[in-house]
Amino acid sequence: MSKTLQPPYYAVIFTSQRTEGDQGYGNMAETMEKLASTQPGFLGIESARDTQLGITVSYWDSLEAIEKWKNHAAHTIAQAKGKEKWYKNYIVRVCKVEKAYSFEK
Amino acid sequence: MSKTLQPPYYAVIFTSQRTEGDQGYGNMAETMEKLASTQPGFLGIESARDTQLGITVSYWDSLEAIEKWKNHAAHTIAQAKGKEKWYKNYIVRVCKVEKAYSFEK
Repeated sequence: MSKTLQPPYYAVIFTSQRTEGDQGYGNMAETMEKLASTQPGFLGIESARDTQLGITVSYWDSLEAIEKWKNHAAHTIAQAKGKEKWYKNYIVRVCKVEKAYSFEK
Repeated sequence: MSKTLQPPYYAVIFTSQRTEGDQGYGNMAETMEKLASTQPGFLGIESARDTQLGITVSYWDSLEAIEKWKNHAAHTIAQAKGKEKWYKNYIVRVCKVEKAYSFEK
């Protein structure tokens, strides 16, 4: 889990429903997560998927960093394959994190 | 999945790691989701949980609506039980959704 950073920072909420079967999705998802984590302005990423829905939230220090990652060459190829093969539907929401608090046992 | 609304609106990203066993969690989670959906300003909710992490994102039309739901009597009781029983840790992030786009096959 990403540690709690001091707001403001930015979050990209990616909610998706997958098509049937892996079709190379697992490998690509892993590759993209690794690549994202090396980009300037990347702060962290959290993912959960169950049978209904997948939610991935990535955290960034600026809107510019998000825009650059969106337009990164390898990521652009992954996005095209996502539309072609892996996703039935998705929503991307770009957000400003205004407040954060946490609990730990 | 929540339909794409016209930004700006607000999102609460709740990421959590659960303790072992159900301990009444499933029932309470369902009750809270139903109750949240009847609150003023509620726009939608999306949830996914796998073995590592749970992510729930709820959407609201204002920060005031989020604050009211946070302080709702029944929700306050659920939060206390969450800290006592159900969660090892969690992070709550209150966000302004600035941009949204979607894809559907």
